[in-house]
Amino acid sequence: MTDPVLYIGNKNYSSWSFRPWIGMRTAGIAFEEKLVPFDMGAGNPAFKAFSPTGKVPVLVDGDVTIWESLAILDHVARRHPEAGLWPENLNDRSKAMAMSSEMVSSFSALRSACPMNMRRERKPIETTPAILADVARIQSLWSGCLENSGGPFLFGAFSIADAMFAPVVNRLDVYAFETGPVVTDYMARMKALPAWREWEAAGRAEPWVVAEDEA
Amino acid sequence: MTDPVLYIGNKNYSSWSFRPWIGMRTAGIAFEEKLVPFDMGAGNPAFKAFSPTGKVPVLVDGDVTIWESLAILDHVARRHPEAGLWPENLNDRSKAMAMSSEMVSSFSALRSACPMNMRRERKPIETTPAILADVARIQSLWSGCLENSGGPFLFGAFSIADAMFAPVVNRLDVYAFETGPVVTDYMARMKALPAWREWEAAGRAEPWVVAEDEA
Repeated sequence: MTDPVLYIGNKNYSSWSFRPWIGMRTAGIAFEEKLVPFDMGAGNPAFKAFSPTGKVPVLVDGDVTIWESLAILDHVARRHPEAGLWPENLNDRSKAMAMSSEMVSSFSALRSACPMNMRRERKPIETTPAILADVARIQSLWSGCLENSGGPFLFGAFSIADAMFAPVVNRLDVYAFETGPVVTDYMARMKALPAWREWEAAGRAEPWVVAEDEA
Repeated sequence: MTDPVLYIGNKNYSSWSFRPWIGMRTAGIAFEEKLVPFDMGAGNPAFKAFSPTGKVPVLVDGDVTIWESLAILDHVARRHPEAGLWPENLNDRSKAMAMSSEMVSSFSALRSACPMNMRRERKPIETTPAILADVARIQSLWSGCLENSGGPFLFGAFSIADAMFAPVVNRLDVYAFETGPVVTDYMARMKALPAWREWEAAGRAEPWVVAEDEA
């Protein structure tokens, strides 16, 4: 069996690519990476050659092509149950899925005003009530999980929930939002993951600058 | 063990509520329904009493509260594996999850211009290229699945993918989009489901009119 192929966009900016990448890397699941840079932030016509939606990420695993970050992570979790990508406890697993789906459906104010940006110098931006409400909801979610599990990650061991929120860790950091101590410590642990450091270093070294993602 | 409680909004309009409701009902999973009407389309402050996001639907199952339609369906699928809510074939299951996640993340043009509306008289609206692109992508997804599975539903037997797209079946119908024969037949089968007819009749009988959802 050959390793699955994960198609991703730029490491500096592609928040959706980062999710399955950090999840699979941290879980020790082997994959071949194919990086296809954005043309202008809004996608790349070349994505259509391998992606049913024209977006990244996409996982090609043998004869099946999976799109959507959450579906890619769920797919590899079922192929590699030993990796423990979903929390073992059934209620925790359902909560991890709810949080992951909320990440997919929500937080549009934060996501549009504060693009993931691995290279960005840490400094605040002008906020709005909608952005601050997103940040408050995220901190409340994380704190609740961490107080319940005792850490080090949202549900104890690293899980898909951590992978799905990884780009938000970058956002709260580089746009200098105020975070409580439990959340600040969690963000430091996420940023210390070997997979995080590997991705961040590669993103910082990329030559591409996407003007619309430089907030 | 008592049945789980599913909190929903108005049946006429609440597309996110419809997804777990039709999924659980069609799979024969018992639940208690609590309908809390929208105040003005944009939510209801009363939702905060039971919902961590202030939105519906929410499932309370014993000591765990699950939000987000897709997470609710995944939760009940794991509690009731005999109901077959996810396709049995592993690749089909991954595709069903990818489509379901795409439903959560995408199709914003169609969703905002064409709210689900069980009472609406069938008539076209003014379209835009973005709306037509959403409709084309959805038809391509459905046709591909149906041609592959042979029907009657997207992956053969009724699954979470059908539940997640059920409100879109209503939209393509009541806003009178042109649909190909495979898609038209699929929509007729969805609308003939006993659970569909039960929900639709209840929605039509509701007294509430939400002006912003009457496109």
